[in-house]
Amino acid sequence: MQTIEGGICAVPGVRAAGVRQGKYGVALIAASGPAAGMFTTNKVRAAPLDVTAEHLQAFGHLDGVIANSGCANAYTGPRGLEDARKMTGLMAGFLGTDQKKVAVASTGVIGRYMDMALIGRLFDEAKTRLRCDPDASAEAAKAVMTTDTRLKEIAVEHKGIHVGGIVKGAGMIEPNVATMLCFLYTDADLTAILLKECLKDAVKDSFNMLTVDGDMSTNDTVLLTSTGKVKCKVDDFYEALRYVCIELARKMARDGEGASKYFETVVIGAKTEQDARLAAKAVANSSLVKTAVFGADPNWGRIICAVGYSGAAMDPEKISLGLEGMDGLEVSLVKRGRIVDGVLDKAKEIMKCDTIFVKIDLGLGDAKARSFGCDLTREYVNINADYTT
Amino acid sequence: MQTIEGGICAVPGVRAAGVRQGKYGVALIAASGPAAGMFTTNKVRAAPLDVTAEHLQAFGHLDGVIANSGCANAYTGPRGLEDARKMTGLMAGFLGTDQKKVAVASTGVIGRYMDMALIGRLFDEAKTRLRCDPDASAEAAKAVMTTDTRLKEIAVEHKGIHVGGIVKGAGMIEPNVATMLCFLYTDADLTAILLKECLKDAVKDSFNMLTVDGDMSTNDTVLLTSTGKVKCKVDDFYEALRYVCIELARKMARDGEGASKYFETVVIGAKTEQDARLAAKAVANSSLVKTAVFGADPNWGRIICAVGYSGAAMDPEKISLGLEGMDGLEVSLVKRGRIVDGVLDKAKEIMKCDTIFVKIDLGLGDAKARSFGCDLTREYVNINADYTT
Repeated sequence: MQTIEGGICAVPGVRAAGVRQGKYGVALIAASGPAAGMFTTNKVRAAPLDVTAEHLQAFGHLDGVIANSGCANAYTGPRGLEDARKMTGLMAGFLGTDQKKVAVASTGVIGRYMDMALIGRLFDEAKTRLRCDPDASAEAAKAVMTTDTRLKEIAVEHKGIHVGGIVKGAGMIEPNVATMLCFLYTDADLTAILLKECLKDAVKDSFNMLTVDGDMSTNDTVLLTSTGKVKCKVDDFYEALRYVCIELARKMARDGEGASKYFETVVIGAKTEQDARLAAKAVANSSLVKTAVFGADPNWGRIICAVGYSGAAMDPEKISLGLEGMDGLEVSLVKRGRIVDGVLDKAKEIMKCDTIFVKIDLGLGDAKARSFGCDLTREYVNINADYTT
Repeated sequence: MQTIEGGICAVPGVRAAGVRQGKYGVALIAASGPAAGMFTTNKVRAAPLDVTAEHLQAFGHLDGVIANSGCANAYTGPRGLEDARKMTGLMAGFLGTDQKKVAVASTGVIGRYMDMALIGRLFDEAKTRLRCDPDASAEAAKAVMTTDTRLKEIAVEHKGIHVGGIVKGAGMIEPNVATMLCFLYTDADLTAILLKECLKDAVKDSFNMLTVDGDMSTNDTVLLTSTGKVKCKVDDFYEALRYVCIELARKMARDGEGASKYFETVVIGAKTEQDARLAAKAVANSSLVKTAVFGADPNWGRIICAVGYSGAAMDPEKISLGLEGMDGLEVSLVKRGRIVDGVLDKAKEIMKCDTIFVKIDLGLGDAKARSFGCDLTREYVNINADYTT
């Protein structure tokens, strides 16, 4: 697996562009081929998701994507649906294709109508910029950022296949893909059905194991399109896709709203995979663990406590817990239920690191899982206390 | 229902005392009669809970309670159990009763052993102060406070029955009774079994609908003891107990760690009570709603969104949403799925109030529930980032 430059435009045949005006932005991506998507499981699902899901159902093929920041077009009823369709119409008209071969995605405030005049103006500007160079991928990624502080893109080459992705999302991120928009591209020659299967598995171990604040959005969308130029084995493609999705999930956790530190929770020895996932997510999601990470407080009891209420099968007598920081710093805090004495100073050193691995062995079986999280800071509160205005 | 002064000491026959030294404190309560308890459902349960549960099982009768702050005595293995038993032994020796007629409760850092020498000294001081006056109730309540900023006690007289309670807890508070210690007393002449039934129902609608940070503690304990001096109807007692528990839950939410504002979420029109509870708790628990309340941001889409992922049956087309503040301020934001225009300024006014009621009608049935929550502030982060040290 080799990381390469260029984001989605590292995949031959993918063109992109983006423009912004204040909180609003429009990103355009053009690339043709079989496609698959995954969407939020929130019962309140935004209009663009309904439209995109319908379009993918119709053809399983995309020629382009239009996405915007500034307004989520969520909870906007029939007018919202109409606006989302208008957006696919704009892009389809420009590409000279069927409207049902265009996907639409939105992010921003919920419960407000789209400013379609502004969208139209931004679209007109963006379409003239559509091109295939590394800057174009970054430009598209930036156009859909909201509270994101960093551009999040990646591309890899693996056994002749290219996979590239851009992602937007920093808060309201929780299980089952939350306020994130992710656009993935590849040249692996696979059917829409195979793409969907690979996407589902990759999302399960990456975005669905990511949590910033436990809120699940109305707008989460992950789209995968293949230009189909490279013959390959499904397994090779899946390996590359999984790598890309996990790296993007890590980037999102690192850029969690107000986050100053990143921590990954690795659970092994679980009875079932579901147990491992529950335990890993409960730790990543605990406000008390998150604030302890922020404050470099080696209050490891909060970690055990979170595992205890996670719903995972666990036995306090069998659990082992350790921390790992950077530069080989490592400490064992609990060994099969017994507290290790005299290690709190070392634990404190590790808790000061920017990147922390929480390692839990439930001692009950062979299943494992990994979650991606960040600390909870004053800055998170600042960002979210005054978002609408 | 009449609120009276004196906390638990408003119930004739209840004596109390408390002393503190730094983070450690010891509270003693003496009162004899049938008793019932409820405990955390966290799989990691602290030693004092095991001991108290065992004692209640043995006799269903308490003569006294010993409680401490400073150390949770959680995740402390056989030594923790021994320490918890020693504490009941101290109190039993002083009261001249069977050790199994004494309950013990602890709160503080997890994964540390008790400082039993300090507990012994504080106990010796506290026992000389045991008395039956209003100050004694407050003194006991204060002795077990951790990050609490306010004393939380209440007493009522209802149809000749007295019910009084003190509670400790401000963070790590979530469904199913979390890091809270609550000691309830009454003179209603009821059996331990009836007390337990009433307690279960009252806790369900009060402490279990309270959330500060979504973390569930290892130490949550609610104990109810009756001196049995007043003959009464169960229903009358239950009414008083429920009132006391709900008021204590409200006090805890208001005193949530770092909380600057209180909000209550009232869900009606749910298909089932479980749905109503899920929806009400998801809103109270949403970091995005909590920060919006802190920032007086009328970002009501976050409320609808939380209902959407709560797991409750809901139809975006049927939901209605309103806000209520103080002084009769009220606004309707969504009516059966339609956004009400031109009301955001009024919503912003209401969001500035110290106490906010979020009113949700799911429009699907008759079931209802109410949750108790507070905002998420910079101060919450400050408090929890550096708790151990």
